[in-house]
Amino acid sequence: MNFPSKLIEEAVNEISRLPGIGKKTALRLALHLLKQKENVTEELTKSLLSLRKDIKYCGICHNISDSDVCSICAGKRRERGIICVVEDIPDVLAIENTSQYNGLYHVLGGVISPIQGIGPDDLKIESLINRIAQSPENEKVKEVILALPATMEGDTTSFFITRRLKEFGIKVSTIARGIPVGGELEYTDEVTLGRSILTRVNYSAE
Amino acid sequence: MNFPSKLIEEAVNEISRLPGIGKKTALRLALHLLKQKENVTEELTKSLLSLRKDIKYCGICHNISDSDVCSICAGKRRERGIICVVEDIPDVLAIENTSQYNGLYHVLGGVISPIQGIGPDDLKIESLINRIAQSPENEKVKEVILALPATMEGDTTSFFITRRLKEFGIKVSTIARGIPVGGELEYTDEVTLGRSILTRVNYSAE
Repeated sequence: MNFPSKLIEEAVNEISRLPGIGKKTALRLALHLLKQKENVTEELTKSLLSLRKDIKYCGICHNISDSDVCSICAGKRRERGIICVVEDIPDVLAIENTSQYNGLYHVLGGVISPIQGIGPDDLKIESLINRIAQSPENEKVKEVILALPATMEGDTTSFFITRRLKEFGIKVSTIARGIPVGGELEYTDEVTLGRSILTRVNYSAE
Repeated sequence: MNFPSKLIEEAVNEISRLPGIGKKTALRLALHLLKQKENVTEELTKSLLSLRKDIKYCGICHNISDSDVCSICAGKRRERGIICVVEDIPDVLAIENTSQYNGLYHVLGGVISPIQGIGPDDLKIESLINRIAQSPENEKVKEVILALPATMEGDTTSFFITRRLKEFGIKVSTIARGIPVGGELEYTDEVTLGRSILTRVNYSAE
């Protein structure tokens, strides 16, 4: 694409470095900003800069936070005996939005992936172990829920964490895989459908 | 959505004000920036701010430009007798990318739309008339190509401009509507197919 102006070319190049945004979308966004008042662009850039510069990460669960301990870890009504281990920050938001979980979290910051060169030491696994080992007597961790992706990498990470947690003798569970609520049997992939039969839930006991 | 941090909430709100970007995409973009080095965000915001503050518009064709006259209007090899009238800046880029047009442009900045309260005076129509009226003898405008959208508003604008140009006795044309190259007859909508028959091109004379 040939641009009539160096300024718009640079802006389009910068915007299109964002994931999932191509040159055409970038141009549309740039032209949109040009049509708005100057303060729209100013507020957008200000919020991006202050996000990048002032964001903090919770020292306990590694979720993003405005202070050194996030609002979930500091929450008084949270069940402190359960820790849900997730790959990344959006997963915390997704689970929080269900309103079905009242425990704490632990954000690994990724999953073990030898291909991408990500080993256990690159993730917050040691931090999870320490957290459980050092939990005070009245807030002992009783259960760790592994909510990692159902991929090779996710399963490897789950396996690795499960083995590391053995010494503590606490319950380790993983979120249920199966047919989504409202999903139709005939359109479900075989792996999911197969797993949902193998891990069937006892109806009478529920 | 509940955010664990005010900073990320503000950034997501600002990003999702952009057209076509919802809260989820905004969050993904914000988290992407957090994972990158700080200078990625700095360069992005710098380019957006300088785009918004330093951009100029060509005094002749109203295209965006780095100087007071854009590179197309200042181009020495351009055919100065033909003006292609377009709705907005992306249309100029689209036509330029075809490499099939060597004339000049005129960016209206929109089309006449009574519903949205856009009248002829809100567009650069008077500027087009003046431009044609004041064109020097050796660069007389011979033809105006209307490349406006094939909508009610676009057609109204085309009609309005055609009437205003009558006094100059110059050729007024519009870009061809028809079946896209590579398009299949059976999947083309009736209006387009009907128009492509009515405005058929004489094969023997081509």
